[in-house]
Amino acid sequence: MSRTRELSGKAAIAGIGATEFSKNSGRTELQLAAEAVRAALADAQIDPADVDGLVTFTMDNNPEIDLAIMLRMGAVQFTSRVHYGGGASCATVHHAAMAVATGQADVVVCYRAFNEASGRRYGSGSKGWTPTPEGVSFGQYMPFGFMTPAAWVAMYARRYMHEYGVGSEDLGRVSVGAREWAATNPAAYFFERPITLEDHQASRWIVEPLRLLDCCMDSDGGVAIVVTTPERARDLPHPPAIVTAAAEGFGAGQEHMTSYYRPSITDLPETAVVARQVWEQAGMGPEDIQVANIYDPFSPFVLIQLEEYGFVKRGEAHHFVNDGHLRRGGDLPTNTNGGQFGEAYIHGMNGIAEAVRQVRGTSVNQVDDVTNVLVTAGVGVPTSGLILSKDT
Amino acid sequence: MSRTRELSGKAAIAGIGATEFSKNSGRTELQLAAEAVRAALADAQIDPADVDGLVTFTMDNNPEIDLAIMLRMGAVQFTSRVHYGGGASCATVHHAAMAVATGQADVVVCYRAFNEASGRRYGSGSKGWTPTPEGVSFGQYMPFGFMTPAAWVAMYARRYMHEYGVGSEDLGRVSVGAREWAATNPAAYFFERPITLEDHQASRWIVEPLRLLDCCMDSDGGVAIVVTTPERARDLPHPPAIVTAAAEGFGAGQEHMTSYYRPSITDLPETAVVARQVWEQAGMGPEDIQVANIYDPFSPFVLIQLEEYGFVKRGEAHHFVNDGHLRRGGDLPTNTNGGQFGEAYIHGMNGIAEAVRQVRGTSVNQVDDVTNVLVTAGVGVPTSGLILSKDT
Repeated sequence: MSRTRELSGKAAIAGIGATEFSKNSGRTELQLAAEAVRAALADAQIDPADVDGLVTFTMDNNPEIDLAIMLRMGAVQFTSRVHYGGGASCATVHHAAMAVATGQADVVVCYRAFNEASGRRYGSGSKGWTPTPEGVSFGQYMPFGFMTPAAWVAMYARRYMHEYGVGSEDLGRVSVGAREWAATNPAAYFFERPITLEDHQASRWIVEPLRLLDCCMDSDGGVAIVVTTPERARDLPHPPAIVTAAAEGFGAGQEHMTSYYRPSITDLPETAVVARQVWEQAGMGPEDIQVANIYDPFSPFVLIQLEEYGFVKRGEAHHFVNDGHLRRGGDLPTNTNGGQFGEAYIHGMNGIAEAVRQVRGTSVNQVDDVTNVLVTAGVGVPTSGLILSKDT
Repeated sequence: MSRTRELSGKAAIAGIGATEFSKNSGRTELQLAAEAVRAALADAQIDPADVDGLVTFTMDNNPEIDLAIMLRMGAVQFTSRVHYGGGASCATVHHAAMAVATGQADVVVCYRAFNEASGRRYGSGSKGWTPTPEGVSFGQYMPFGFMTPAAWVAMYARRYMHEYGVGSEDLGRVSVGAREWAATNPAAYFFERPITLEDHQASRWIVEPLRLLDCCMDSDGGVAIVVTTPERARDLPHPPAIVTAAAEGFGAGQEHMTSYYRPSITDLPETAVVARQVWEQAGMGPEDIQVANIYDPFSPFVLIQLEEYGFVKRGEAHHFVNDGHLRRGGDLPTNTNGGQFGEAYIHGMNGIAEAVRQVRGTSVNQVDDVTNVLVTAGVGVPTSGLILSKDT
């Protein structure tokens, strides 16, 4: 048996919380973080004084100690930060699960909060880079116009579309599907605002072959997740979402969004590294998953992730999407909160919260008979993944 | 039994490596990191391709993915960063131990490398702060001249000296002791350059009551530590240093170096939080420790840590030091590499490496009959601690 299985079932999500999702929160990021964490703890009915672990992103600007003071936490025994932006989302739960499994903490809150729409926009490419190795590495690409995530991803997308005969309308159906879920989710920024394939085709180019409606939104907001032992979670008000698998990683030759020197740029080796572990750790395969929340920064990366996780063969994801399988009644309802295209872009943390609701049976777009939900994190960077399950 | 004990003995340090320690390395921080990691892996006789975990500080500027490319690592399954500067050192091993214990990684390298003397000096107070909560929190102190770590610590030191009748010469004996160990360590920056108490007393004020020789040095350099399973470590060339305890944390009301609104400023509650866990996890007490590597940014913080770990009663550490117990032949030889006063300031990572040497029996200042070594990390911020032990 793979050693990675030792973590399976050793932790559970007992609480989720969020602020509203907007384009201009009107308050500080720290305030958003505190509100999200407080909401998640209230959801779990755990007192802030019981929190003994805090995990967030290196990119987050809300220090653990400030949150602890604001929310009147006591001693905290574990903190951890995950690097590389959106790839970190599921890894925060991975770290929390390790701490809980080894007895290093009992109640770990994972959080991410930002004013990404109204405030500092970290995806703006050349702004604010300092002469560290990370800045220098982008220096190889920026002179050629590779200044933003859309540009970096467009390079992969163009080749992927060429290699597998994927058209712009195929990408569009990913966006249309996500906005369809969002339209019936009152918490979604795009609640009651679905789009058509014609809207997608009429939307302007950001970086060819990506149109405006191939890109997720920018958002202000915060999301928090409470991780504890399965035993403790069972005594709390909500049915636990068991962490059946949690994993992270990156592949050889990994760069930060610009891994163009690998043999192929139509796959995502970092996702393959995580997928292998997730299936191994859970002792499951794609057929065991009822709902997927696939990190959706740009439409083509949804397609490639479906392939890396083995839901479809290489190059066939667009047929699977075109057949409606990600939509209501499909084989794999995906991003049922509307994802980052439709609900909000909170660096993937809102996808974890939606997975918990699907496991609990409380999503506004609830899928029938959910036992296991797959959640993925940002790609093009070191990434992470989760399987959350009903307690059985 | 406390759940924290579940981690004890589940991981071991199998390799240590470092660059030379200097005031001007003449090369990039990334180069230093790569050299230190390669040296640590060579020491362990582990191929870089076998590394599947990487842990460093949020403050470190050497990205995991760049190291992986430089050293030809393959897929990596775990990365983690610890926030808050020097308090992170032992926490890197804590995170590595959790990953190894839960089967999430088999070979985790913890590293820290910087040009702190010749390059960007992060302890320079007001330089480069951005309007994040961390910058804003210092804004309460900076208008009053609290611009640097020496100033922040001087506030604690003044009160501590007043409360317990500690004089400048008492602080000086901490420095003299450290430089005595460094004088016989060829790797130390201050090799063959011991100081006298008179030197200490003649050194200029930095911020009263701290003289120049109450402050550790600035250094350029890198240190890396290889953590793996005890089983694997036993098959490698060096005797394993078993991670008998690893812990981290902070207390209520924790600020970043400026926790002045707690009931007392002559103790270090963050160290108390870690000390409690370390003793619990190891099932040990101060009497079980033969060597201590106490994080020494400024002399008074060595004294307070000795009290928090229970080696002496509150307010009595200076008597213990004056009696020579930290020196050769004393009851608790401390910072036998010369510490950050004498060997180098590598954010405490060099103290972990020295602890490994003491457990192996290979220190240039080897203490007889070492079974357990305590290592501590930076204080005034969330901190961490380790007990490393002979394999028995």
